[in-house]
Amino acid sequence: MKNETIEKLIAKQKFAYIASVDQDGYPNMKAMLAPRRREGLKEFYFTTNTSSQRVAQYRKDPKAAIYFCDQRFYRGIMLKGKMEVIEDATTKKSIWQVGDRIYYPKGVTDPDYCVLKFTTDQGRWYSGFKTDDFTP
Amino acid sequence: MKNETIEKLIAKQKFAYIASVDQDGYPNMKAMLAPRRREGLKEFYFTTNTSSQRVAQYRKDPKAAIYFCDQRFYRGIMLKGKMEVIEDATTKKSIWQVGDRIYYPKGVTDPDYCVLKFTTDQGRWYSGFKTDDFTP
Repeated sequence: MKNETIEKLIAKQKFAYIASVDQDGYPNMKAMLAPRRREGLKEFYFTTNTSSQRVAQYRKDPKAAIYFCDQRFYRGIMLKGKMEVIEDATTKKSIWQVGDRIYYPKGVTDPDYCVLKFTTDQGRWYSGFKTDDFTP
Repeated sequence: MKNETIEKLIAKQKFAYIASVDQDGYPNMKAMLAPRRREGLKEFYFTTNTSSQRVAQYRKDPKAAIYFCDQRFYRGIMLKGKMEVIEDATTKKSIWQVGDRIYYPKGVTDPDYCVLKFTTDQGRWYSGFKTDDFTP
């Protein structure tokens, strides 16, 4: 798969899956709404709760993976990299949307609202019977 | 969510997501076809390629998680536990289906066909704004 095709696949998905490693060395994962902002295949910004388990785990160990699945065509994209927990007002404002008040009643300054920024190191795609690494 | 509800959610999904930890300590994950066999919330059997990256990772570190997502209702189930790579003929035969020949041309004795058996230690569910641990 070409990087252009991979980007298109990612852009179409409503959900992303994010993985972390917990304090006992187990992988953990969770479905998330699609990233709110994306810079090519290199940077992905998600909104989340500061109080969540995933945030606590990434603060201890930023090693992460994110995954996008096109279930209809049996294609998947895994990206490995680092996840940063970002709480500065500028970044939080930059991806805030009005509807987010449902999740964070105090608005954009809600201390339970934060941003997860994922930066890709390496990628791997799966399509039918084939799979290969790629550099984003 | 009650365990009964969790089982129903899992039984309805066509896909599962499985996670491992790689040699560099990064979480890895991949979409899989739904488990071929399941014993309540405790044991899950998947078919896979013996030559796959996931198999190599589980042989080194059996710590695993599997995840089921009901995208329509924003509900997810994460199970943490251990993944075993099983290659004995009896287990392989027990979950083999005729259509598997597409993936494993040599049939049930194909050395590239093996079974991943996941055993749950702990679970966590996500539903709307709520999340909690549960014991399977």
